[in-house]
Amino acid sequence: MASLTIPTGDTTYTEKVQAVKIRLESSIPASLRLSSSILADFPLDVTGIPQLCGLLTSSELAITELDATTVCKRIAEGNLSAVEVVTAFGKRAAVAHQLTQCLTDYFLDEGIAQAQELDEYYKREGKVIGPLHGLPVSIKDHMPIKGRWGSGGFLSNLELSKEDCDMTAILRQLGAVFYVKTNQPQGIFALESTSFYGRTLNPHNLHLTPGGSSGGEGALIAMKGSCIGVGSDVGGSIRAPSAHCGIYGICPTALTMPTHDYIWYQNGQDGVHLSTGPMCRSAQDMATFLQALASTEPHLLDPKLIPLSFDLPDLSQRKLRVGIMTHDQTVVPHPPTSRALQLAREKLSAAPNLEVVDYQAYDHAVGYALAHEMYMEDGGKTFRRMLKEGGEDILPLGGWVTGLQPIKDHDAIEMWQLHDKRDSFRRAYSDYWNKIGCDVVLCPPFAGTASRHDTAKYWSYTAIWNLLDYPGAVFPTGLKVDPAIDEVPPSYAALGDKDLENYKLYADDPSVFKGAPISLQLVAKRFNDGLLLAALNVIEGIVKG
Amino acid sequence: MASLTIPTGDTTYTEKVQAVKIRLESSIPASLRLSSSILADFPLDVTGIPQLCGLLTSSELAITELDATTVCKRIAEGNLSAVEVVTAFGKRAAVAHQLTQCLTDYFLDEGIAQAQELDEYYKREGKVIGPLHGLPVSIKDHMPIKGRWGSGGFLSNLELSKEDCDMTAILRQLGAVFYVKTNQPQGIFALESTSFYGRTLNPHNLHLTPGGSSGGEGALIAMKGSCIGVGSDVGGSIRAPSAHCGIYGICPTALTMPTHDYIWYQNGQDGVHLSTGPMCRSAQDMATFLQALASTEPHLLDPKLIPLSFDLPDLSQRKLRVGIMTHDQTVVPHPPTSRALQLAREKLSAAPNLEVVDYQAYDHAVGYALAHEMYMEDGGKTFRRMLKEGGEDILPLGGWVTGLQPIKDHDAIEMWQLHDKRDSFRRAYSDYWNKIGCDVVLCPPFAGTASRHDTAKYWSYTAIWNLLDYPGAVFPTGLKVDPAIDEVPPSYAALGDKDLENYKLYADDPSVFKGAPISLQLVAKRFNDGLLLAALNVIEGIVKG
Repeated sequence: MASLTIPTGDTTYTEKVQAVKIRLESSIPASLRLSSSILADFPLDVTGIPQLCGLLTSSELAITELDATTVCKRIAEGNLSAVEVVTAFGKRAAVAHQLTQCLTDYFLDEGIAQAQELDEYYKREGKVIGPLHGLPVSIKDHMPIKGRWGSGGFLSNLELSKEDCDMTAILRQLGAVFYVKTNQPQGIFALESTSFYGRTLNPHNLHLTPGGSSGGEGALIAMKGSCIGVGSDVGGSIRAPSAHCGIYGICPTALTMPTHDYIWYQNGQDGVHLSTGPMCRSAQDMATFLQALASTEPHLLDPKLIPLSFDLPDLSQRKLRVGIMTHDQTVVPHPPTSRALQLAREKLSAAPNLEVVDYQAYDHAVGYALAHEMYMEDGGKTFRRMLKEGGEDILPLGGWVTGLQPIKDHDAIEMWQLHDKRDSFRRAYSDYWNKIGCDVVLCPPFAGTASRHDTAKYWSYTAIWNLLDYPGAVFPTGLKVDPAIDEVPPSYAALGDKDLENYKLYADDPSVFKGAPISLQLVAKRFNDGLLLAALNVIEGIVKG
Repeated sequence: MASLTIPTGDTTYTEKVQAVKIRLESSIPASLRLSSSILADFPLDVTGIPQLCGLLTSSELAITELDATTVCKRIAEGNLSAVEVVTAFGKRAAVAHQLTQCLTDYFLDEGIAQAQELDEYYKREGKVIGPLHGLPVSIKDHMPIKGRWGSGGFLSNLELSKEDCDMTAILRQLGAVFYVKTNQPQGIFALESTSFYGRTLNPHNLHLTPGGSSGGEGALIAMKGSCIGVGSDVGGSIRAPSAHCGIYGICPTALTMPTHDYIWYQNGQDGVHLSTGPMCRSAQDMATFLQALASTEPHLLDPKLIPLSFDLPDLSQRKLRVGIMTHDQTVVPHPPTSRALQLAREKLSAAPNLEVVDYQAYDHAVGYALAHEMYMEDGGKTFRRMLKEGGEDILPLGGWVTGLQPIKDHDAIEMWQLHDKRDSFRRAYSDYWNKIGCDVVLCPPFAGTASRHDTAKYWSYTAIWNLLDYPGAVFPTGLKVDPAIDEVPPSYAALGDKDLENYKLYADDPSVFKGAPISLQLVAKRFNDGLLLAALNVIEGIVKG
């Protein structure tokens, strides 16, 4: 790992970043530091260390095994206190950070103080303050929490937030407790998570990235240092890290969940809208989170938002029609992902209550190119300006994303033409989907499992759904990469250059990926988020049954 | 009226336009031509001529008095045939056109043939084909009907349409019958309706414009040559002509009704979205139309659309809170509009079932400037190119709208900044509205009643709601301009230059406006279209009671 790129910059950058890192590291108390013996020798899979490190009591370890829905239930029943819960997750988060560099801010004291108030409320009133009473929620760095640090992925937009953003204000009102913020990549624009705070690692295999841009969340939740966190996604940033870390995550239909005042540097960009949603440890948790948020009617607060019910339809009386897309006609996923999808297909095909159909990707390459063009309509000018203002050097994936072929500066007419192409593509795609007549499509969440650091350059398996604004959820299959099973075929007839490039990433050394979780993605049409969650319950049950 | 601008162009333009006009005029059969005695001498208010001209039978005249909801009901009950209905409205439309130049295409034969099929279906099946079975619907020129002419307001985008657009396809599927298309202004970008087809006049007072851009619809429906038509609105284009012509019209929340394939030259423009909706003869007709359209779930066909229910909430158990905005702090409406609003305020204040509050306009001038800047993000380049391609000269209001101060060509970053300002304005406005806590706001639909030709340069009373995407409906108060009552005050303390300019338009000669209908506008927050319609029923009842 010595060859990995380290974020650098000019003298001012170096000094400021040093101060930032001292602030972060000193926020973790000595009592929660891993022993030198553990730090001297730990395995590539660090997910077992919290149990072994001796820093958490057995009851704290037991609490951190719970999902968010159970945590809320136990607190509401009076069987757990909010202070106990945030303490347990907070301690485990400290351990997680020392092994994966997943955090950007750590403030367990504040979390405990907030939890104490909630416990007092519960004692005094005999009821919870809201549906998420006492639930510790980890927050991606660019979502402001009053009085805490936040950034848009550049040193130049690092700030001490004066106010909560809508998301954290609403979560707070629902009873959530804040205690950590999590890492994201430079400019929040990569499917990995290396920023001026450092590089976040995948806890299942430190050779790999947790994905991004919500990769701090991915690593933290996989380490069980949080049971639920908030990510954001404009090209795969919730789904890639959820998939790579073996957790659950949903990118809802855009403009249904509050993103107001998230720290960002392309405000007013209407080409592809940012979405935001939960990353968590059970399918139920996704519904719990989205339904709690929707119950506050966030569209009344933010006129950008569209009211949507996240209630799950009853599927017991109908036959679900599931499309299966094995690849996108440009890049075939690595053998582990294809194995999991094939297994899922076999089980689903044998199930009585659903119908499985082949789903051929419809012009995904065209849509993906449009998405990339819309990600940087100014040709990357603003990205480069943000770097310059912080004296920050561009990282390999930042250089790649701002240097892509379709990226150029646009004038007004070119912007209209681009957005018109987007609209035409969406229409043609919708016609195609309607013709196939699927309820949902099961597909890879990425062109493989978690990738090696600095190599995640193919976003199409997630970005295509952002372009279309179709909600997508990922879930772990329970399978992991096993190079002995997931063999490289003796000869490979690549679909093209991009496929060959992706193929080599795995074929050159499959052993690197050992132990990486294998996940799948389920997608529904725009506004069918409730159907998506209901279908996920059915499908996950069969796939894991 | 001899001094009015006449659309002109180069030789090719002149030849083509001559052919277009011959095609249009020759489509009206000799049997429906007004007699030379009527044409030689008719009053400024031509709305009475259909009764006097002798071209319609008394039963035809009776049919044309009906609103759309009643037409549908009578046909469904078997008390009227579709052929009878379209024949009556078609004959009256021919009369209307000869007096106001409201049409761009006339095809009563096709309408009768379509109606015959519907009558046969009804006879054969014993039921209607859909909720709009047999309803004649007039269609604004830029909405394609298969096999008919359509344009985006320029000679250069005049076309014979190969297919229905979504709107007309859905209407057809619901049982609607097409027989005419209606005029709009050059580039569909003015609050009046003068195109290469000619200048549409206000049937209540030929000295005045019917408004625009859906002014052909306004004039036609006011003449009862149609009971319901489809308009489109990005700055007031449904509401201004509805107000000026004394009919009903609603600009629903954008992206809830189908606009796909409307002929346009700024596709991909995301700054302010075009809306589309009915113009008609009763408040009930607006609900009938919107609910019928929504029942087809148009968002399944067009992925741009947002599903929305247009059901009316029950207001009988609650006290409606109505804000009244007398002016927008920049331009005070002319005396007739202020009189109607003052009368409405008095009646509403005396009503037991609602609460009336003052509503001060919140930064409307800022929002209006943003709207204008977004209407022509390319600085008018495309508008001028469209003119050039057709050899068409720019008309006074086209010259004005493309020459406004805030209009300039934008690059990508400037586009983002502009849209970000829009988002910030929307948020601040929503916060303000929430603080006042109104259900709806009653306000002027325009800075006066119908304006004199080529003078409608102040769009803010409607455009501000497009910028905010708040649905707005206009309704006639039943009052008309009476220069004897609507006197000019002896001295006038103008709010500023714009106010003075608007004031003079009336004060210079109030007698010009005699007989113009006085209408009001009711507005609700985004997505509250059902509430808006329900509140309109309550308020209209009181105002006219």
